[in-house]
Amino acid sequence: MSIDVKPRITPLRNFASSELQNVRERKPLIHCVTNQVVMNWTANVLYALGASPLMSHAPEESSDLAKIRQGLVVNIGTLTHSWLQDLKQIVSDEKKQRGDSPVAILDPVGAGATVFRTENARDLLASGAFRILRGNAFEIMSVAGEKARGSGVDSLEASGQALAAAQSLAQEHDLIVVVSGATDWVTDGKRLLSLNNGTPLLTQVTGTGCSLNAVIAAFVAVAEPTEYFSAVAAAVSVFNIAGEKAATTAKGPGSFAVQFLDELTNLEPRHLDLLTGSEVEE
Amino acid sequence: MSIDVKPRITPLRNFASSELQNVRERKPLIHCVTNQVVMNWTANVLYALGASPLMSHAPEESSDLAKIRQGLVVNIGTLTHSWLQDLKQIVSDEKKQRGDSPVAILDPVGAGATVFRTENARDLLASGAFRILRGNAFEIMSVAGEKARGSGVDSLEASGQALAAAQSLAQEHDLIVVVSGATDWVTDGKRLLSLNNGTPLLTQVTGTGCSLNAVIAAFVAVAEPTEYFSAVAAAVSVFNIAGEKAATTAKGPGSFAVQFLDELTNLEPRHLDLLTGSEVEE
Amino acid sequence: MSIDVKPRITPLRNFASSELQNVRERKPLIHCVTNQVVMNWTANVLYALGASPLMSHAPEESSDLAKIRQGLVVNIGTLTHSWLQDLKQIVSDEKKQRGDSPVAILDPVGAGATVFRTENARDLLASGAFRILRGNAFEIMSVAGEKARGSGVDSLEASGQALAAAQSLAQEHDLIVVVSGATDWVTDGKRLLSLNNGTPLLTQVTGTGCSLNAVIAAFVAVAEPTEYFSAVAAAVSVFNIAGEKAATTAKGPGSFAVQFLDELTNLEPRHLDLLTGSEVEE
Repeated sequence: MSIDVKPRITPLRNFASSELQNVRERKPLIHCVTNQVVMNWTANVLYALGASPLMSHAPEESSDLAKIRQGLVVNIGTLTHSWLQDLKQIVSDEKKQRGDSPVAILDPVGAGATVFRTENARDLLASGAFRILRGNAFEIMSVAGEKARGSGVDSLEASGQALAAAQSLAQEHDLIVVVSGATDWVTDGKRLLSLNNGTPLLTQVTGTGCSLNAVIAAFVAVAEPTEYFSAVAAAVSVFNIAGEKAATTAKGPGSFAVQFLDELTNLEPRHLDLLTGSEVEE
Repeated sequence: MSIDVKPRITPLRNFASSELQNVRERKPLIHCVTNQVVMNWTANVLYALGASPLMSHAPEESSDLAKIRQGLVVNIGTLTHSWLQDLKQIVSDEKKQRGDSPVAILDPVGAGATVFRTENARDLLASGAFRILRGNAFEIMSVAGEKARGSGVDSLEASGQALAAAQSLAQEHDLIVVVSGATDWVTDGKRLLSLNNGTPLLTQVTGTGCSLNAVIAAFVAVAEPTEYFSAVAAAVSVFNIAGEKAATTAKGPGSFAVQFLDELTNLEPRHLDLLTGSEVEE
Repeated sequence: MSIDVKPRITPLRNFASSELQNVRERKPLIHCVTNQVVMNWTANVLYALGASPLMSHAPEESSDLAKIRQGLVVNIGTLTHSWLQDLKQIVSDEKKQRGDSPVAILDPVGAGATVFRTENARDLLASGAFRILRGNAFEIMSVAGEKARGSGVDSLEASGQALAAAQSLAQEHDLIVVVSGATDWVTDGKRLLSLNNGTPLLTQVTGTGCSLNAVIAAFVAVAEPTEYFSAVAAAVSVFNIAGEKAATTAKGPGSFAVQFLDELTNLEPRHLDLLTGSEVEE
């Protein structure tokens, strides 16, 4: 398991700043196999960040794409049987390409809401192709086999039970797990970081969580493997800070979404002074 | 057939206000089986309204979703053969779950433009799983078997012929039928209500009709069966009033769409004083 | 091969103005068989222009749609095997309907990035159903069989090699070819026009190229066959001028996209004085 060198909050601010700079300069190509609801929004978030989106779910070109992409995002939001077959090929090609150094991120949208989603989220995770898992407390608990109540789509705040589930999944599958909510939690099974930026408006626009996956993938794409934990935390914080800034003048979820894209594009290093969080001592 | 208790306009204003409040408090989960063009917009409209969107077209999870959703919206905008097979399973599961108390809404997008859409719209309606049908005059006439001219996608104003078709469909299938246009018409086969809010800008943004279906589903989800007729009318009016307010400062269809979401979120009871319409005496 | 009567820039401004007027009056129905990322945006661009969008990829209704549409746009952005089969039927029905007078436009999104896209783009072109081909330099070179470097999704500036590829394709398949970039190039294999409007912000919003295809289709739909070359050039210029105007007050890609739709709707003849370009003498 990798050892991360920048766990504390002040160094995280500096790291987030250099990561953002690196993403803008290197424009990593992020391949998103994502649901039909959020494809457009996710591509626009990647462009606003300065990265390059590529949306495809065709197994016929999966092996070609594995060679040119710098990151892979998988999201089961509008999962169907045939799409699942295609996805398995894509995940298999990613594993062939990356071997034991996975960078891909899985979003188990709606796990817990239906057996179909819960079981396939678990199967995908068991493939070993993923390095990062992001969901709300309900989804993370459901993937871990914990019983939780809720619709599985809207976010729930993380309980101690959800954090234990996240840490357990991280250890079992060698993952970095993000539990999204009013407070965001990041764990690699040993360390646990709480991040406190964001705005409730991010929950009133569809696809914000899905596009956060893409931002995480872009940050990981320009980081060293020893920095992945910090890269994930930096991505979450940068995304949420852009949200905070957009919320200050938004009149509702419509103008918020527009301003969020503008703020993400215009974010400067000094804005990352807003980053707040803490590492939980165990 | 249900008997509605709030047919007149003044009580409708008060009812619309309490319905809006109820939607925001109870956040009904609305399952949309809708076309690929409008999924994102429809989800964002439901969020702006205060409801919870769930987009899925997988028969594998249809039975699970039937148990947790409060409303179902079906739209044939990008209908394909395989999607149709999946949809039939979803509709069948809805019928199993709801029995003789349907709440689902069907939007026969493009009926009349192609035989494929017209016939499948009719088949879906004949399933008995639907309680509400919404379309423009051309689509409603086409579903009813009337000959009409037009492309079937853009709205046409309702003629007496279209209203007769709507009333006939309502009686035959025990439906509430909405005929959308500059004036919107709502009928349950006995009563006929004309509603006069709205703005032409609503026809210059794709998916507004489709998202209105979702708003109707949310209003019906928090109403008693005896109030469904009023709930449908209230939903149409609330939607159109948000449009009117957005239109006052919009510079074109781009800013209109953004402001529409903001206005829907910020709509207050006093804004419903704008509601205008009349019940047609027969 | 058609002979165009308005090749020079000043007449092109006047022609663009009358074309825009014609599109708004006749509201051509443009059938888009396009990728899932850009369907919503493309429909909204067509509405903002004053045309009528119709999104469908079902072979079951392809023959019906061929009779009522005024234009066809094909885009292979999220190509899959089953979608390809459906597309072939649609293209075949278009050829049956139009015979030797094709108007359809092909966008070979991502050609060169994967073998799957490159080969299918070439097969589609060889069908003879297309009159217009639009892509960035990398895509056009890839379709022509030239080796080029790049991801195939982001735009590359056109080199002399790309222009030679475009002219060669135009001659071989009797096409009008558009090579998009900071400078846009239009050629029918004999003449070569460079167009200089636009803004880098157009490359920071997903689907702008795809929606330009739809605008080109609408302009061709209201033009005479002898005017197609000018119609394509006029469409490119009108699109880019709306972009320039939106860019003057945009704060980032979010507000730019919104304002672009507003500007496209509000564009007046006098704004076309901004049109710049030149015909390259050979």
